[in-house]
Amino acid sequence: MDQEATVKRGVWKYKHGQFIRLEDDIVTEVPLTLKVDREEFATMVCTPTYMEELVIGFLASEGLIRSMEDIRSLSLNTSRGFADVELTAPQNTGKDWHQKRFIASCCGKSRQFYLHNDARTAKTIVSRDSLSAERCISLMQELQQGSADFHKTGGLHNAALGGADGLLLTRSDIGRHNAIDKIYGHCIRHRISMKGKVLAISGRVSSEILLKAAKIGVGLLLSKSAPTELALKLAEDLGITVVGFIRGHSFNVYTHPERIVHDGSPS
Amino acid sequence: MDQEATVKRGVWKYKHGQFIRLEDDIVTEVPLTLKVDREEFATMVCTPTYMEELVIGFLASEGLIRSMEDIRSLSLNTSRGFADVELTAPQNTGKDWHQKRFIASCCGKSRQFYLHNDARTAKTIVSRDSLSAERCISLMQELQQGSADFHKTGGLHNAALGGADGLLLTRSDIGRHNAIDKIYGHCIRHRISMKGKVLAISGRVSSEILLKAAKIGVGLLLSKSAPTELALKLAEDLGITVVGFIRGHSFNVYTHPERIVHDGSPS
Repeated sequence: MDQEATVKRGVWKYKHGQFIRLEDDIVTEVPLTLKVDREEFATMVCTPTYMEELVIGFLASEGLIRSMEDIRSLSLNTSRGFADVELTAPQNTGKDWHQKRFIASCCGKSRQFYLHNDARTAKTIVSRDSLSAERCISLMQELQQGSADFHKTGGLHNAALGGADGLLLTRSDIGRHNAIDKIYGHCIRHRISMKGKVLAISGRVSSEILLKAAKIGVGLLLSKSAPTELALKLAEDLGITVVGFIRGHSFNVYTHPERIVHDGSPS
Repeated sequence: MDQEATVKRGVWKYKHGQFIRLEDDIVTEVPLTLKVDREEFATMVCTPTYMEELVIGFLASEGLIRSMEDIRSLSLNTSRGFADVELTAPQNTGKDWHQKRFIASCCGKSRQFYLHNDARTAKTIVSRDSLSAERCISLMQELQQGSADFHKTGGLHNAALGGADGLLLTRSDIGRHNAIDKIYGHCIRHRISMKGKVLAISGRVSSEILLKAAKIGVGLLLSKSAPTELALKLAEDLGITVVGFIRGHSFNVYTHPERIVHDGSPS
């Protein structure tokens, strides 16, 4: 059972030169240790909501599963913070290999991957999905409004899956990665097609976030914040349209502008 | 040699219903793989500035070193993104052990640690250092102003070490953890005493950030943003004063308020 994403807690507030005692909303954060085939695989900290989908999305991000058929059993002890997963077929879960540095050394086009796992699981996106400029703005507004409850704590990142008709699914977490893994886990569990879908996030677009979008298989990544240069190199290479700094009625398109349609389109 | 923290890049900007082509500042992000005694230990992504201090701080955060005497040699290849470290005495660098879940199971006071490494290296802070309420505000203002150059990119976190006379040292990185590790590395390299020092950061106070403060050995952690509940439990336990939401002329004190002095002190 999921726990609460926030708790009440007493704080000393300093304002107008005086301290007052009041109650504030604080985001919760719990450790979650994932065991795969009885071996400890990773310990993360997360917001204790949608933890089963977080585990599924994390396993997929790490390249251990592709669909629910790859999971024989998944049991979650939220109060102790443990998830036990048995896979259908034994995998090479050796972190030794798949978190090792990937060096594309020999031939032709040099890709920007830096971990073996990413080089194996991130897909090049070939979809011709498109989105109107005004829809970019309205999806981000919807993400902001939908997460208004969490704004008061100031401590959560939001991610959402959207389509032509608006947002379909929103998830929050103290970790930017976790929020996206919760989306990914939901999509895998419910076999949701990525055709026509976009990923919208409140946080920055780092290389790791961009790689998650490629693994999920969306061609459009919308963010309220800034991208990094490495993320943009990966986006160019993997065929992903990155739209950033969506604020008010403006935004920047950084890569693959052909997917953003408008009377005065950039492409 | 350090590389640039930002680069210029062409973007398509949408504003007032039209696209225009312009140049924007984008933060750089590079992978850095750390080898310890010839074994690959970790790959991180970072802003390519102060990378040697980042490596030193990261090694200390991970519990592999305590001082420069523990490092026999450190060589950095920034263009390839590799750091090779030889330690003076062989360490148990086995991630298998030190990143494993720590379960305090048996006796007395239950601590909030969740990794073995943290349980071994995070120190309880016993200092009686104090800071005035107005100094909390002015240090955060100084951090904001000093990092104005980076604000335009919207993609960097800032961390600073401060004292009674203001900020002593500011570092920026795309990763919140890295910005603090760069501070930590500088302090270890230059044998800077933590007496009377505070750590000020732009980002949120998660449990991992709080544990870094405990490892560095500061009793005061100032943030523009929010803390998590787990970070506050750790802060109570480890004797650290957490001050958050420092914005304009107000802030919240969450733990150990006795270090914040004022005519109308909260303690």
